[in-house]
Amino acid sequence: LQQGGMRRAARMLNALQPAEIAHLLESLPPKERELAWNLVEAEYDGEVLTYLHDDVREHLIQLMDTGELVAAVGSLDTDDLADIFQDLPVAITQEVVNSLDQQRRDRLEKALSFPEDSAGGLMNTDTVTVRPEMTLDVVMRYLRRLKDGLPDITDNLIVVNRKGNYLGVLYLTDLVTHDPEDSVAEAMTLDIQAIPATWSAREVATRFEQHDLVTAPVIDEDGGLLGRITVDDVMDVIREEAEHQFMGQAGLSETEDMFAPVLLSARRRALWLGVNLLTAFLAAWVIGRFEATIQQVVALAVLMPVVASMGGIAGTQTLTLAIRGIAVGQLSIKNARWLLWKEMAVAGINSVIWALVVALIARLWFHDTNIALVIGAAISINLLAAAFSGAMLPLLLERFGIDPALAGGVILTTVTDVVGFLSFLGLATIFLL
Amino acid sequence: LQQGGMRRAARMLNALQPAEIAHLLESLPPKERELAWNLVEAEYDGEVLTYLHDDVREHLIQLMDTGELVAAVGSLDTDDLADIFQDLPVAITQEVVNSLDQQRRDRLEKALSFPEDSAGGLMNTDTVTVRPEMTLDVVMRYLRRLKDGLPDITDNLIVVNRKGNYLGVLYLTDLVTHDPEDSVAEAMTLDIQAIPATWSAREVATRFEQHDLVTAPVIDEDGGLLGRITVDDVMDVIREEAEHQFMGQAGLSETEDMFAPVLLSARRRALWLGVNLLTAFLAAWVIGRFEATIQQVVALAVLMPVVASMGGIAGTQTLTLAIRGIAVGQLSIKNARWLLWKEMAVAGINSVIWALVVALIARLWFHDTNIALVIGAAISINLLAAAFSGAMLPLLLERFGIDPALAGGVILTTVTDVVGFLSFLGLATIFLL
Repeated sequence: LQQGGMRRAARMLNALQPAEIAHLLESLPPKERELAWNLVEAEYDGEVLTYLHDDVREHLIQLMDTGELVAAVGSLDTDDLADIFQDLPVAITQEVVNSLDQQRRDRLEKALSFPEDSAGGLMNTDTVTVRPEMTLDVVMRYLRRLKDGLPDITDNLIVVNRKGNYLGVLYLTDLVTHDPEDSVAEAMTLDIQAIPATWSAREVATRFEQHDLVTAPVIDEDGGLLGRITVDDVMDVIREEAEHQFMGQAGLSETEDMFAPVLLSARRRALWLGVNLLTAFLAAWVIGRFEATIQQVVALAVLMPVVASMGGIAGTQTLTLAIRGIAVGQLSIKNARWLLWKEMAVAGINSVIWALVVALIARLWFHDTNIALVIGAAISINLLAAAFSGAMLPLLLERFGIDPALAGGVILTTVTDVVGFLSFLGLATIFLL
Repeated sequence: LQQGGMRRAARMLNALQPAEIAHLLESLPPKERELAWNLVEAEYDGEVLTYLHDDVREHLIQLMDTGELVAAVGSLDTDDLADIFQDLPVAITQEVVNSLDQQRRDRLEKALSFPEDSAGGLMNTDTVTVRPEMTLDVVMRYLRRLKDGLPDITDNLIVVNRKGNYLGVLYLTDLVTHDPEDSVAEAMTLDIQAIPATWSAREVATRFEQHDLVTAPVIDEDGGLLGRITVDDVMDVIREEAEHQFMGQAGLSETEDMFAPVLLSARRRALWLGVNLLTAFLAAWVIGRFEATIQQVVALAVLMPVVASMGGIAGTQTLTLAIRGIAVGQLSIKNARWLLWKEMAVAGINSVIWALVVALIARLWFHDTNIALVIGAAISINLLAAAFSGAMLPLLLERFGIDPALAGGVILTTVTDVVGFLSFLGLATIFLL
C-alpha cells in the first residue's frame, strides 16, 4: 500500500468499533495483521485486545513494547484487564499493577481471585446501588449527579441494605414509569435471584437464557453484593462454549487462530495426529491378527472398511446427541438409561436394515453367500456396539473429568474400528475357512 | 406417582419459568414428558411451547385438542405466535387467526411475511417511540401513563420523526441522568444504526455481539420503523447456529429431540447412514481394483486403514477451522488463498514427520523397506490432499449453496479415503510387485 492508501485504511479502521477491529484483525494473515495493528490508534489498543482470541492476542502483544502495553491496558476496566492479565508478559504485569491506583488495584486483585470461567470471573464491579428507603425522586437526583453517567448496559439499579447485602433490583423501566414519590422498596423487583460468584460460566449462561436476563447481580456466600454480569459477556460465553464443542471434536482449541504461524500449527496438529495414529495402529494390529484369513479371502480386505465406517458414522450420531445433551444440561446419569435404550432400539432397527443392504451388495459383488452373511452379522454387531458406546462414553468421560467434546470422537472411532474389524474378520475366520 | 406426589410435582413444575419448564420437558423421555406436560398449567402452555425445539413442540401439540391450543397460543405475543405458527395443524391456524383482534391479526401477518431467520422474523413489534422535540420531562409523564408499563428488555425508547422514520434511540440511562428540561434530541444517541428487516439472523447476531447491543431497531427499506430485536432472541440465534454446526457434522438436525420416537429417529439416521454407505462402497471399490496386489502382499490390507484414517483426521482439522471461519464471517474467497497456503505448509511439515514415523513402524513390523517407503509416500500424499480439500471444500460448497457444516465431513472423508487407498495400493502395485 502507498502512503495515501495507508492513511485511508487507517481512517477506515479506526472508525470501527473495537470488536469489529478485532474481528477484522483475526481475518488477516500474520503480516497483514501486523500492518493493520500498527494502524490502530493507541487509545483503542487495549479494548481491541480484549476482544481477540487468545492466540491472536498473544501474537499482537509480542509486537508491543512495555510503554505501549502499559498505556493500552492501563485504561481498561478492571474486569477486562483481569481477562487478559495472564496473557501479559510477566515483566509487564508488575508495571501495570504499579500504574493503577489503590481502588483499581484492589478490584483487579478481587477479579483475579476468581477462575476466568466462573461467575466471579465474568462479573464487572461497576454496580450502581440504591437503598430501599430512598424515594424514586431521590434516586433520579442521585443519578443526575453521577459524574460519568451510568455504565453501559444498565437495565437496573441494584438495591442493597446498609451492610451491602443484595435485596433486589430496581429496573430503569420501573423507575421511569412509577410515581416519583414511591419508594425504591415499592418499585423494586424481588424475584431476580442473585448469582453466587462460584457458579460456572455455563450455569450463568443457562440462567440468562432461561430468564431472559440483561444483567444479573453477583453475590458472595454471605449475600454481599460483589458485582454484576452483563449479557454481552454471556453471549461470549455461549459462543466460546459452542466453539469449544465444535472445534474440540477435531482436536482443535477454540482459541485457535485461523492464520496461526505454520510451525505452531504443525506442532499442535501433530499431537492430535499422534493420538489418532496410535488408535489407527491398534486397528491395524487387529487386522494383522487375521492376515492368514485375508490371504485366503481377499474380498475381506475390500469390504472391511465398510464395516468400520458404518459403525463410526452411527456411533458419532449417538455421541453427538449425548454431548449436546450434557452441554445443555439435559442429559445426566439420571436419564441416561432412557437415552441408552432409545439409541439401542434405533440401532437395532438400523442394524437389521443395513445388514440386509450391505449383505445384498456384497452378495451381488462377490457372488458368495457366506461372505454376505458374515458382513451382515458384523454390521449388526458394530452398529449396536456403536450406539452403546456413543451413549455411554460421554457420561463416563464426564465422570472421570475428561472433556467428552475433546476425547469422545477418538475413543468412539477406536471402539467402532476395533469392534468392526474384529467381528468381521473373526466371523470370517470361523465361518469362511 | 401417587396422587399426593403428582400434586407436589405439579406445584414444583409450575413454579418454574416457562423456559425452565421447556428445558425440563426436553430432558424427559416421551411418556414422562406427556405426564409432565399435563401438569403444566394451561396459562403457561403457550409460552412453554415457544421455548421448545421443533420436534418436541410438535410432539406436545399433537396431544392438545383444538380448544386448548387456541387458548394457549391466542395469548402469545404476535412475534412468538409467528414463530410457532407453521408448526400448528392447518385446521387450527384459521381458528387462531379468527380469535385475534384486527390489530394483532395485522401484526401476525406482517411477522409471517418475513423469513423466520431474518431480522424481520426475529423482531417484536412492541416498540415505544418518542419524538425528538419532546422534553425528557414530557417523555417521563408519557411513560407513567402507559397502561402496561414498558415491555420486557427495554433499554431505550426509539426516536422517530413525524412519518415514523427511525432517527435514533433515547437510552433510559440517558433519560434518567439528563436534565428533565433537555429535549429528546439533546439526550438521544445517533450512532445506533437500525437493522434492515432483510438482514439474516447471523448478521443480526454479529451486529449485537460486536456492538454489545441489548435491543436494536428494525427498519424497512425506506427507513420506516418496523419493530425491534431484543438480545434474548439473539442469544437463541447464537445457540441454534452453534448447534446446527455441531449436530450438522453428524447429519443431525439441531431441532433433534434426544428422546425422539425410535421409528422416527431410525428413519432420519438411515438417510445419513445411506449416504455414508455409498461413500464407503466407493472406497471399497477402489480397494477392489487392487485385489491382485493385496493377494500378493497381505501387509497392505493391514496397513491401508492407517493411511485413510490419518488423512481423514488431518483433513477434518482443516475443514473444521474453515467452517468456523466461514460461520463467523472471517473466511471468504478473499482470504481463502492465505488459509490454503498456510494449511498446505502445515500439512507439508506434518506429512514429512508422519511419513517417517509410519514408515519406521511399518519397517519394524513387516521387516520390508519397500512397504515402508510406499506407506510413507502414501501418507504424505494423503495429508497434502486432505489439507487442500479441507481448506477449499467449505468455500466451494458455500458457493453452490450447500451447507458445509452438513455435507463437508462426508465429502472430505470420501476424498481422503479414496486418495489414501488409491495412492497406497497404487504405489504398492507399481513398486512392490
